[in-house]
Amino acid sequence: MKEQPLILISNDDGITAPGLRVLVEEMSQLGEVIVVAPDKPQSAMGHAITVTEPLRLKQNYIFKDILAFECSGTPADCVKLALDKICPRRPDIMVSGINHGPNYSINVIYSGTMSAAVEAAVDGIQAIGFSLNDYSQDAYFEYCRPFIKKITETILEHPLPYGTLLNVNMPKTENIKGIRVCRQASARYAENFDERKDPSGKTYYWMTGKFINMEADDNDTDLWAVDNDYVSVVPTKFDLTSNGVIQHLKHLL
Amino acid sequence: MKEQPLILISNDDGITAPGLRVLVEEMSQLGEVIVVAPDKPQSAMGHAITVTEPLRLKQNYIFKDILAFECSGTPADCVKLALDKICPRRPDIMVSGINHGPNYSINVIYSGTMSAAVEAAVDGIQAIGFSLNDYSQDAYFEYCRPFIKKITETILEHPLPYGTLLNVNMPKTENIKGIRVCRQASARYAENFDERKDPSGKTYYWMTGKFINMEADDNDTDLWAVDNDYVSVVPTKFDLTSNGVIQHLKHLL
Repeated sequence: MKEQPLILISNDDGITAPGLRVLVEEMSQLGEVIVVAPDKPQSAMGHAITVTEPLRLKQNYIFKDILAFECSGTPADCVKLALDKICPRRPDIMVSGINHGPNYSINVIYSGTMSAAVEAAVDGIQAIGFSLNDYSQDAYFEYCRPFIKKITETILEHPLPYGTLLNVNMPKTENIKGIRVCRQASARYAENFDERKDPSGKTYYWMTGKFINMEADDNDTDLWAVDNDYVSVVPTKFDLTSNGVIQHLKHLL
Repeated sequence: MKEQPLILISNDDGITAPGLRVLVEEMSQLGEVIVVAPDKPQSAMGHAITVTEPLRLKQNYIFKDILAFECSGTPADCVKLALDKICPRRPDIMVSGINHGPNYSINVIYSGTMSAAVEAAVDGIQAIGFSLNDYSQDAYFEYCRPFIKKITETILEHPLPYGTLLNVNMPKTENIKGIRVCRQASARYAENFDERKDPSGKTYYWMTGKFINMEADDNDTDLWAVDNDYVSVVPTKFDLTSNGVIQHLKHLL
Protein backbone atom coordinates (compact mmCIF):
# COMPACT_ATOMS: atom_id res chain seq x y z
CA MET A 1 0.00 0.00 0.00
CA LYS A 2 1.28 3.42 -0.91
CA GLU A 3 2.20 5.60 2.04
CA GLN A 4 -0.19 8.48 2.71
CA PRO A 5 1.18 11.94 1.90
CA LEU A 6 2.52 13.81 4.92
CA ILE A 7 0.94 17.25 5.16
CA LEU A 8 2.44 19.97 7.37
CA ILE A 9 0.06 22.76 8.38
CA SER A 10 0.68 26.16 9.92
CA ASN A 11 -0.92 29.59 9.93
CA ASP A 12 -0.44 33.09 11.31
CA ASP A 13 -3.69 33.57 13.22
CA GLY A 14 -2.57 31.08 15.86
CA ILE A 15 -3.40 27.49 16.70
CA THR A 16 -6.93 28.23 17.92
CA ALA A 17 -8.06 30.07 14.77
CA PRO A 18 -11.21 28.65 13.13
CA GLY A 19 -9.59 28.89 9.68
CA LEU A 20 -6.82 26.51 10.76
CA ARG A 21 -9.38 23.96 11.94
CA VAL A 22 -11.09 23.91 8.54
CA LEU A 23 -7.73 23.36 6.85
CA VAL A 24 -6.89 20.53 9.26
CA GLU A 25 -10.24 18.85 8.56
CA GLU A 26 -9.79 19.06 4.79
CA MET A 27 -6.17 17.88 4.84
CA SER A 28 -7.02 14.93 7.09
CA GLN A 29 -8.97 13.54 4.14
CA LEU A 30 -5.89 13.71 1.94
CA GLY A 31 -3.13 12.34 4.15
CA GLU A 32 -1.34 12.29 7.49
CA VAL A 33 -1.43 15.72 9.10
CA ILE A 34 1.00 17.49 11.45
CA VAL A 35 0.21 20.96 12.78
CA VAL A 36 2.83 23.39 14.09
CA ALA A 37 1.22 26.80 14.55
CA PRO A 38 1.95 29.96 16.54
CA ASP A 39 0.66 30.03 20.12
CA LYS A 40 -0.71 33.55 19.52
CA PRO A 41 -1.76 35.63 16.49
CA GLN A 42 1.18 36.63 14.28
CA SER A 43 -0.54 38.61 11.57
CA ALA A 44 1.52 41.00 9.41
CA MET A 45 4.74 39.40 10.63
CA GLY A 46 6.08 39.18 7.09
CA HIS A 47 8.95 36.78 6.81
CA ALA A 48 10.26 37.42 10.32
CA ILE A 49 12.31 34.71 12.00
CA THR A 50 13.43 34.61 15.61
CA VAL A 51 17.20 34.74 15.92
CA THR A 52 17.80 36.57 19.20
CA GLU A 53 15.46 34.65 21.48
CA PRO A 54 14.94 30.95 22.21
CA LEU A 55 11.81 29.23 20.93
CA ARG A 56 9.38 26.94 22.72
CA LEU A 57 7.26 24.09 21.39
CA LYS A 58 4.32 22.62 23.29
CA GLN A 59 2.10 19.75 22.26
CA ASN A 60 -1.53 20.75 21.87
CA TYR A 61 -4.51 18.39 21.83
CA ILE A 62 -7.25 20.53 20.30
CA PHE A 63 -7.36 18.46 17.09
CA LYS A 64 -8.61 14.92 17.62
CA ASP A 65 -6.07 12.26 16.53
CA ILE A 66 -3.80 14.91 14.97
CA LEU A 67 -0.22 15.57 16.11
CA ALA A 68 -0.20 19.30 16.86
CA PHE A 69 2.22 21.72 18.49
CA GLU A 70 2.02 25.37 19.41
CA CYS A 71 5.18 27.38 18.95
CA SER A 72 6.25 30.64 20.58
CA GLY A 73 7.68 32.00 17.33
CA THR A 74 6.60 33.38 13.99
CA PRO A 75 4.95 31.38 11.17
CA ALA A 76 8.34 30.96 9.48
CA ASP A 77 9.81 29.73 12.80
CA CYS A 78 6.99 27.17 13.04
CA VAL A 79 7.90 25.65 9.69
CA LYS A 80 11.63 25.63 10.41
CA LEU A 81 11.10 23.94 13.77
CA ALA A 82 8.58 21.48 12.33
CA LEU A 83 11.02 20.36 9.65
CA ASP A 84 13.94 20.01 12.03
CA LYS A 85 12.28 18.65 15.19
CA ILE A 86 8.74 17.35 14.55
CA CYS A 87 8.24 15.80 11.13
CA PRO A 88 9.22 12.11 11.06
CA ARG A 89 9.95 12.44 7.33
CA ARG A 90 9.97 15.16 4.72
CA PRO A 91 6.42 16.51 4.19
CA ASP A 92 4.94 16.03 0.74
CA ILE A 93 3.22 19.39 1.01
CA MET A 94 2.91 22.30 3.43
CA VAL A 95 -0.32 24.30 3.59
CA SER A 96 -0.85 27.51 5.51
CA GLY A 97 -4.05 29.22 6.66
CA ILE A 98 -6.89 29.54 6.17
CA ASN A 99 -6.09 33.15 6.89
CA HIS A 100 -8.82 35.38 8.25
CA GLY A 101 -8.38 38.16 5.68
CA PRO A 102 -7.04 38.38 2.12
CA ASN A 103 -3.37 38.06 1.17
CA TYR A 104 -3.78 39.10 -2.43
CA SER A 105 -1.82 41.77 -4.20
CA ILE A 106 0.77 43.64 -2.10
CA ASN A 107 -0.55 41.98 1.08
CA VAL A 108 1.61 38.99 0.15
CA ILE A 109 4.77 40.75 1.37
CA TYR A 110 3.31 41.42 4.84
CA SER A 111 1.65 38.05 5.20
CA GLY A 112 2.62 35.62 7.93
CA THR A 113 0.42 33.00 6.26
CA MET A 114 2.44 33.22 3.08
CA SER A 115 5.77 33.40 4.93
CA ALA A 116 5.13 29.95 6.39
CA ALA A 117 4.44 28.62 2.89
CA VAL A 118 7.47 30.43 1.45
CA GLU A 119 9.67 28.91 4.14
CA ALA A 120 8.59 25.42 3.09
CA ALA A 121 9.00 26.22 -0.60
CA VAL A 122 12.57 27.48 -0.07
CA ASP A 123 13.24 24.08 1.47
CA GLY A 124 11.96 22.44 -1.70
CA ILE A 125 8.60 21.37 -0.30
CA GLN A 126 5.36 21.93 -2.24
CA ALA A 127 3.51 24.78 -0.54
CA ILE A 128 0.21 26.65 -0.66
CA GLY A 129 -1.10 29.60 1.35
CA PHE A 130 -4.89 29.84 1.68
CA SER A 131 -6.74 33.03 2.69
CA LEU A 132 -10.36 34.10 2.84
CA ASN A 133 -11.45 37.65 2.09
CA ASP A 134 -13.04 38.04 5.52
CA TYR A 135 -11.18 39.37 8.56
CA SER A 136 -13.74 38.35 11.16
CA GLN A 137 -13.11 35.66 13.76
CA ASP A 138 -16.38 33.95 12.79
CA ALA A 139 -15.67 34.05 9.05
CA TYR A 140 -17.61 31.35 7.21
CA PHE A 141 -15.18 28.95 5.55
CA GLU A 142 -17.57 26.21 4.35
CA TYR A 143 -17.76 27.31 0.72
CA CYS A 144 -13.96 27.18 0.50
CA ARG A 145 -13.66 23.47 1.25
CA PRO A 146 -14.04 21.96 -2.25
CA PHE A 147 -11.57 24.49 -3.70
CA ILE A 148 -8.97 23.85 -1.03
CA LYS A 149 -9.26 20.13 -1.63
CA LYS A 150 -9.10 20.41 -5.41
CA ILE A 151 -6.09 22.75 -5.45
CA THR A 152 -4.15 20.68 -2.91
CA GLU A 153 -4.87 17.41 -4.72
CA THR A 154 -3.78 18.96 -8.01
CA ILE A 155 -0.44 20.09 -6.56
CA LEU A 156 0.16 16.72 -4.88
CA GLU A 157 -0.38 15.10 -8.27
CA HIS A 158 1.44 17.74 -10.37
CA PRO A 159 4.18 19.28 -8.22
CA LEU A 160 5.29 22.84 -8.91
CA PRO A 161 8.83 23.54 -10.12
CA TYR A 162 11.37 24.51 -7.42
CA GLY A 163 11.06 28.17 -6.57
CA THR A 164 7.28 28.38 -6.93
CA LEU A 165 4.42 28.09 -4.43
CA LEU A 166 0.75 29.08 -4.58
CA ASN A 167 -1.00 32.09 -3.07
CA VAL A 168 -4.73 31.20 -2.98
CA ASN A 169 -7.34 33.80 -2.02
CA MET A 170 -11.01 32.99 -1.66
CA PRO A 171 -13.96 35.36 -1.96
CA LYS A 172 -16.51 35.89 0.78
CA THR A 173 -19.56 34.51 -0.97
CA GLU A 174 -21.65 31.38 -1.13
CA ASN A 175 -21.64 31.62 -4.92
CA ILE A 176 -17.99 31.06 -5.83
CA LYS A 177 -17.80 31.10 -9.63
CA GLY A 178 -14.64 29.02 -10.01
CA ILE A 179 -10.85 29.30 -10.01
CA ARG A 180 -8.78 31.94 -11.80
CA VAL A 181 -5.04 31.41 -12.18
CA CYS A 182 -3.73 34.94 -12.36
CA ARG A 183 -1.03 37.44 -11.37
CA GLN A 184 -0.53 39.60 -8.29
CA ALA A 185 -2.28 42.96 -8.70
CA SER A 186 -0.29 46.14 -8.30
CA ALA A 187 -1.61 47.95 -5.23
CA ARG A 188 -0.31 49.77 -2.20
CA TYR A 189 -1.44 51.24 1.10
CA ALA A 190 -1.67 54.98 1.58
CA GLU A 191 -0.26 55.49 5.05
CA ASN A 192 -2.41 57.32 7.49
CA PHE A 193 -1.34 56.93 11.10
CA ASP A 194 -3.87 57.81 13.75
CA GLU A 195 -2.10 60.12 16.20
CA ARG A 196 -3.18 60.00 19.86
CA LYS A 197 -2.01 61.11 23.31
CA ASP A 198 -1.48 58.64 26.13
CA PRO A 199 -2.61 59.49 29.69
CA SER A 200 0.76 61.14 30.38
CA GLY A 201 0.40 63.37 27.32
CA LYS A 202 2.90 61.56 25.11
CA THR A 203 2.11 60.91 21.46
CA TYR A 204 1.59 57.45 20.03
CA TYR A 205 0.47 56.20 16.65
CA TRP A 206 -1.86 53.49 15.37
CA MET A 207 -1.23 52.20 11.90
CA THR A 208 -4.16 52.56 9.56
CA GLY A 209 -4.01 52.65 5.80
CA LYS A 210 -6.17 52.93 2.74
CA PHE A 211 -5.75 50.15 0.21
CA ILE A 212 -5.24 51.55 -3.28
CA ASN A 213 -5.78 49.25 -6.25
CA MET A 214 -3.60 50.59 -9.06
CA GLU A 215 -5.03 48.22 -11.67
CA ALA A 216 -8.76 48.37 -11.10
CA ASP A 217 -9.51 47.87 -14.81
CA ASP A 218 -7.44 44.73 -15.38
CA ASN A 219 -9.23 41.39 -15.15
CA ASP A 220 -6.14 39.15 -14.98
CA THR A 221 -5.22 39.95 -11.37
CA ASP A 222 -5.92 38.32 -8.02
CA LEU A 223 -7.76 41.42 -6.81
CA TRP A 224 -10.13 41.30 -9.77
CA ALA A 225 -10.72 37.58 -9.32
CA VAL A 226 -11.66 37.80 -5.63
CA ASP A 227 -13.71 40.96 -6.14
CA ASN A 228 -15.62 39.08 -8.83
CA ASP A 229 -16.30 35.98 -6.71
CA TYR A 230 -13.54 33.76 -8.10
CA VAL A 231 -10.86 31.92 -6.14
CA SER A 232 -7.54 33.48 -7.20
CA VAL A 233 -4.47 31.27 -7.57
CA VAL A 234 -1.20 33.16 -8.04
CA PRO A 235 1.98 31.15 -8.65
CA THR A 236 4.41 32.98 -6.38
CA LYS A 237 8.20 32.95 -6.17
CA PHE A 238 10.88 33.95 -3.70
CA ASP A 239 13.58 34.82 -6.21
CA LEU A 240 13.02 38.57 -6.21
CA THR A 241 15.41 39.37 -9.06
CA SER A 242 13.94 41.86 -11.53
CA ASN A 243 15.60 40.20 -14.51
CA GLY A 244 14.35 42.72 -17.04
CA VAL A 245 16.28 45.52 -15.35
CA ILE A 246 19.69 43.78 -15.18
CA GLN A 247 20.88 44.77 -18.67
CA HIS A 248 19.68 48.35 -18.25
CA LEU A 249 21.61 48.67 -14.99
CA LYS A 250 24.75 47.12 -16.42
CA HIS A 251 25.01 50.10 -18.76
CA LEU A 252 24.71 52.55 -15.88
CA LEU A 253 26.95 51.00 -13.20
CA MET B 1 18.86 77.05 -7.40
CA LYS B 2 17.63 73.49 -7.68
CA GLU B 3 16.33 72.03 -4.45
CA GLN B 4 18.54 69.41 -2.85
CA PRO B 5 17.26 65.84 -3.04
CA LEU B 6 15.49 64.65 0.11
CA ILE B 7 16.98 61.36 1.31
CA LEU B 8 15.18 59.18 3.84
CA ILE B 9 17.36 56.71 5.73
CA SER B 10 16.51 53.73 7.88
CA ASN B 11 18.04 50.39 8.84
CA ASP B 12 17.35 47.29 10.88
CA ASP B 13 20.31 47.27 13.26
CA GLY B 14 18.89 50.27 15.12
CA ILE B 15 19.66 53.97 15.26
CA THR B 16 23.00 53.57 17.07
CA ALA B 17 24.49 51.10 14.56
CA PRO B 18 27.84 52.17 13.06
CA GLY B 19 26.68 51.16 9.58
CA LEU B 20 23.83 53.67 9.74
CA ARG B 21 26.25 56.46 10.66
CA VAL B 22 28.38 55.78 7.57
CA LEU B 23 25.27 55.90 5.39
CA VAL B 24 24.17 59.19 6.99
CA GLU B 25 27.61 60.71 6.38
CA GLU B 26 27.64 59.69 2.73
CA MET B 27 24.07 60.80 2.04
CA SER B 28 24.66 64.17 3.69
CA GLN B 29 27.00 64.92 0.79
CA LEU B 30 24.23 64.23 -1.70
CA GLY B 31 21.22 65.99 -0.23
CA GLU B 32 19.02 66.75 2.75
CA VAL B 33 18.84 63.76 5.09
CA ILE B 34 16.11 62.51 7.42
CA VAL B 35 16.68 59.43 9.57
CA VAL B 36 13.88 57.30 11.04
CA ALA B 37 15.36 54.10 12.42
CA PRO B 38 14.35 51.44 14.95
CA ASP B 39 15.15 52.16 18.60
CA LYS B 40 16.56 48.63 18.95
CA PRO B 41 17.95 45.96 16.62
CA GLN B 42 15.31 44.45 14.31
CA SER B 43 17.33 41.94 12.35
CA ALA B 44 15.54 39.12 10.53
CA MET B 45 12.20 40.90 10.95
CA GLY B 46 11.34 40.31 7.31
CA HIS B 47 8.56 42.57 6.13
CA ALA B 48 6.81 42.68 9.49
CA ILE B 49 4.60 45.65 10.27
CA THR B 50 3.03 46.53 13.59
CA VAL B 51 -0.75 46.43 13.43
CA THR B 52 -1.79 45.33 16.92
CA GLU B 53 0.26 47.75 19.02
CA PRO B 54 0.73 51.51 18.98
CA LEU B 55 4.02 52.95 17.76
CA ARG B 56 6.24 55.61 19.31
CA LEU B 57 8.54 58.13 17.68
CA LYS B 58 11.23 60.04 19.59
CA GLN B 59 13.60 62.65 18.24
CA ASN B 60 17.24 61.63 18.55
CA TYR B 61 20.23 63.98 18.38
CA ILE B 62 23.11 61.60 17.71
CA PHE B 63 23.67 62.92 14.18
CA LYS B 64 24.89 66.52 14.08
CA ASP B 65 22.54 68.82 12.11
CA ILE B 66 20.45 65.86 10.89
CA LEU B 67 16.76 65.41 11.67
CA ALA B 68 16.59 61.95 13.20
CA PHE B 69 13.94 59.88 15.01
CA GLU B 70 13.97 56.54 16.72
CA CYS B 71 10.86 54.42 16.30
CA SER B 72 9.55 51.59 18.46
CA GLY B 73 8.53 49.54 15.42
CA THR B 74 10.01 47.48 12.62
CA PRO B 75 12.04 48.85 9.69
CA ALA B 76 8.90 48.83 7.51
CA ASP B 77 7.03 50.73 10.27
CA CYS B 78 9.82 53.33 10.30
CA VAL B 79 9.38 54.06 6.61
CA LYS B 80 5.59 54.19 6.83
CA LEU B 81 5.71 56.59 9.78
CA ALA B 82 8.43 58.71 8.17
CA LEU B 83 6.37 59.17 5.02
CA ASP B 84 3.17 59.99 6.87
CA LYS B 85 4.42 62.02 9.84
CA ILE B 86 8.03 63.21 9.40
CA CYS B 87 9.01 63.99 5.82
CA PRO B 88 8.08 67.56 4.81
CA ARG B 89 7.84 66.41 1.19
CA ARG B 90 8.12 63.19 -0.74
CA PRO B 91 11.68 61.80 -0.51
CA ASP B 92 13.62 61.53 -3.77
CA ILE B 93 15.23 58.35 -2.53
CA MET B 94 15.18 56.02 0.47
CA VAL B 95 18.33 54.17 1.49
CA SER B 96 18.57 51.45 4.11
CA GLY B 97 21.57 50.10 5.99
CA ILE B 98 24.43 49.72 5.98
CA ASN B 99 23.50 46.33 7.35
CA HIS B 100 26.00 44.50 9.51
CA GLY B 101 25.87 41.23 7.58
CA PRO B 102 24.98 40.22 4.02
CA ASN B 103 21.49 40.27 2.55
CA TYR B 104 22.35 38.47 -0.64
CA SER B 105 20.59 35.44 -2.03
CA ILE B 106 17.72 34.04 0.09
CA ASN B 107 18.65 36.37 2.97
CA VAL B 108 16.67 39.06 1.13
CA ILE B 109 13.35 37.56 2.29
CA TYR B 110 14.34 37.68 5.98
CA SER B 111 15.98 41.07 5.81
CA GLY B 112 14.71 44.04 7.79
CA THR B 113 17.14 46.25 5.87
CA MET B 114 15.54 45.30 2.58
CA SER B 115 12.00 45.48 3.99
CA ALA B 116 12.49 49.18 4.72
CA ALA B 117 13.64 49.73 1.14
CA VAL B 118 10.80 47.60 -0.25
CA GLU B 119 8.29 49.64 1.74
CA ALA B 120 9.55 52.84 0.09
CA ALA B 121 9.61 51.23 -3.36
CA VAL B 122 5.99 50.08 -3.03
CA ASP B 123 5.17 53.72 -2.37
CA GLY B 124 6.87 54.65 -5.63
CA ILE B 125 10.04 56.04 -4.06
CA GLN B 126 13.50 55.12 -5.40
CA ALA B 127 15.07 52.74 -2.90
CA ILE B 128 18.33 50.94 -2.17
CA GLY B 129 19.32 48.52 0.59
CA PHE B 130 23.04 48.41 1.44
CA SER B 131 24.69 45.54 3.35
CA LEU B 132 28.26 44.59 4.20
CA ASN B 133 29.38 40.99 4.38
CA ASP B 134 30.51 41.37 8.00
CA TYR B 135 28.25 40.71 10.98
CA SER B 136 30.48 42.31 13.62
CA GLN B 137 29.56 45.50 15.44
CA ASP B 138 32.96 47.00 14.57
CA ALA B 139 32.71 46.07 10.88
CA TYR B 140 34.90 48.33 8.77
CA PHE B 141 32.76 50.29 6.31
CA GLU B 142 35.31 52.73 4.88
CA TYR B 143 35.95 50.86 1.63
CA CYS B 144 32.22 50.88 0.89
CA ARG B 145 31.87 54.67 0.78
CA PRO B 146 32.73 55.37 -2.89
CA PHE B 147 30.44 52.55 -4.07
CA ILE B 148 27.53 53.73 -1.96
CA LYS B 149 27.93 57.22 -3.32
CA LYS B 150 28.26 56.13 -6.94
CA ILE B 151 25.24 53.78 -6.85
CA THR B 152 23.03 56.34 -5.10
CA GLU B 153 24.02 59.15 -7.48
CA THR B 154 23.34 56.89 -10.46
CA ILE B 155 19.83 56.06 -9.25
CA LEU B 156 19.06 59.70 -8.42
CA GLU B 157 20.05 60.55 -12.00
CA HIS B 158 18.49 57.48 -13.67
CA PRO B 159 15.47 56.41 -11.62
CA LEU B 160 14.41 52.77 -11.65
CA PRO B 161 11.04 51.77 -13.12
CA TYR B 162 8.16 51.38 -10.64
CA GLY B 163 8.31 48.01 -8.96
CA THR B 164 12.10 47.77 -8.77
CA LEU B 165 14.62 48.64 -6.05
CA LEU B 166 18.26 47.69 -5.50
CA ASN B 167 19.77 45.12 -3.16
CA VAL B 168 23.46 46.06 -2.78
CA ASN B 169 25.89 43.78 -0.95
CA MET B 170 29.49 44.70 -0.31
CA PRO B 171 32.42 42.36 0.29
CA LYS B 172 34.59 42.48 3.40
CA THR B 173 37.88 43.49 1.79
CA GLU B 174 40.00 46.54 1.22
CA ASN B 175 40.48 45.46 -2.39
CA ILE B 176 36.99 45.77 -3.86
CA LYS B 177 37.28 44.89 -7.54
CA GLY B 178 34.23 46.80 -8.77
CA ILE B 179 30.46 46.47 -9.20
CA ARG B 180 28.61 43.47 -10.62
CA VAL B 181 24.95 43.85 -11.61
CA CYS B 182 23.63 40.33 -11.16
CA ARG B 183 20.80 38.10 -10.01
CA GLN B 184 19.86 36.63 -6.63
CA ALA B 185 21.61 33.30 -6.06
CA SER B 186 19.54 30.25 -5.21
CA ALA B 187 20.42 29.18 -1.68
CA ARG B 188 18.72 28.06 1.47
CA TYR B 189 19.39 27.35 5.12
CA ALA B 190 19.49 23.81 6.43
CA GLU B 191 17.63 24.06 9.73
CA ASN B 192 19.42 22.83 12.76
CA PHE B 193 17.91 23.98 16.04
CA ASP B 194 20.07 23.74 19.11
CA GLU B 195 17.97 21.98 21.76
CA ARG B 196 18.59 22.92 25.43
CA LYS B 197 16.96 22.55 28.84
CA ASP B 198 16.10 25.58 30.97
CA PRO B 199 16.76 25.53 34.76
CA SER B 200 13.32 24.01 35.35
CA GLY B 201 14.02 21.19 32.91
CA LYS B 202 11.85 22.44 30.07
CA THR B 203 13.12 22.28 26.49
CA TYR B 204 13.86 25.36 24.44
CA TYR B 205 15.42 25.85 21.01
CA TRP B 206 17.92 28.27 19.50
CA MET B 207 17.77 28.76 15.76
CA THR B 208 20.98 27.94 13.95
CA GLY B 209 21.30 27.03 10.32
CA LYS B 210 23.83 26.12 7.70
CA PHE B 211 23.78 28.27 4.58
CA ILE B 212 23.71 26.14 1.45
CA ASN B 213 24.68 27.74 -1.86
CA MET B 214 22.85 25.80 -4.54
CA GLU B 215 24.64 27.57 -7.42
CA ALA B 216 28.28 27.58 -6.36
CA ASP B 217 29.51 27.26 -9.94
CA ASP B 218 27.57 30.18 -11.45
CA ASN B 219 29.34 33.51 -11.74
CA ASP B 220 26.31 35.69 -12.47
CA THR B 221 24.92 35.69 -8.91
CA ASP B 222 25.21 38.03 -5.94
CA LEU B 223 26.82 35.30 -3.87
CA TRP B 224 29.56 34.80 -6.43
CA ALA B 225 30.13 38.54 -6.74
CA VAL B 226 30.57 39.15 -3.01
CA ASP B 227 32.64 35.98 -2.54
CA ASN B 228 34.90 37.25 -5.31
CA ASP B 229 35.35 40.75 -3.86
CA TYR B 230 32.83 42.57 -6.03
CA VAL B 231 29.94 44.77 -4.89
CA SER B 232 26.76 42.96 -5.99
CA VAL B 233 23.79 44.98 -7.24
CA VAL B 234 20.58 42.99 -7.71
CA PRO B 235 17.54 44.76 -9.16
CA THR B 236 14.82 43.45 -6.87
CA LYS B 237 11.03 43.45 -7.16
CA PHE B 238 8.03 42.99 -4.89
CA ASP B 239 5.67 41.55 -7.48
CA LEU B 240 6.17 37.90 -6.58
CA THR B 241 4.17 36.45 -9.48
CA SER B 242 5.91 33.52 -11.12
CA ASN B 243 4.66 34.46 -14.58
CA GLY B 244 6.21 31.46 -16.31
CA VAL B 245 4.02 29.07 -14.32
CA ILE B 246 0.65 30.76 -14.97
CA GLN B 247 -0.09 29.01 -18.29
CA HIS B 248 0.99 25.64 -16.94
CA LEU B 249 -1.35 26.00 -13.96
CA LYS B 250 -4.26 27.16 -16.11
CA HIS B 251 -4.25 23.73 -17.74
CA LEU B 252 -4.37 21.99 -14.36
CA LEU B 253 -6.92 24.05 -12.41
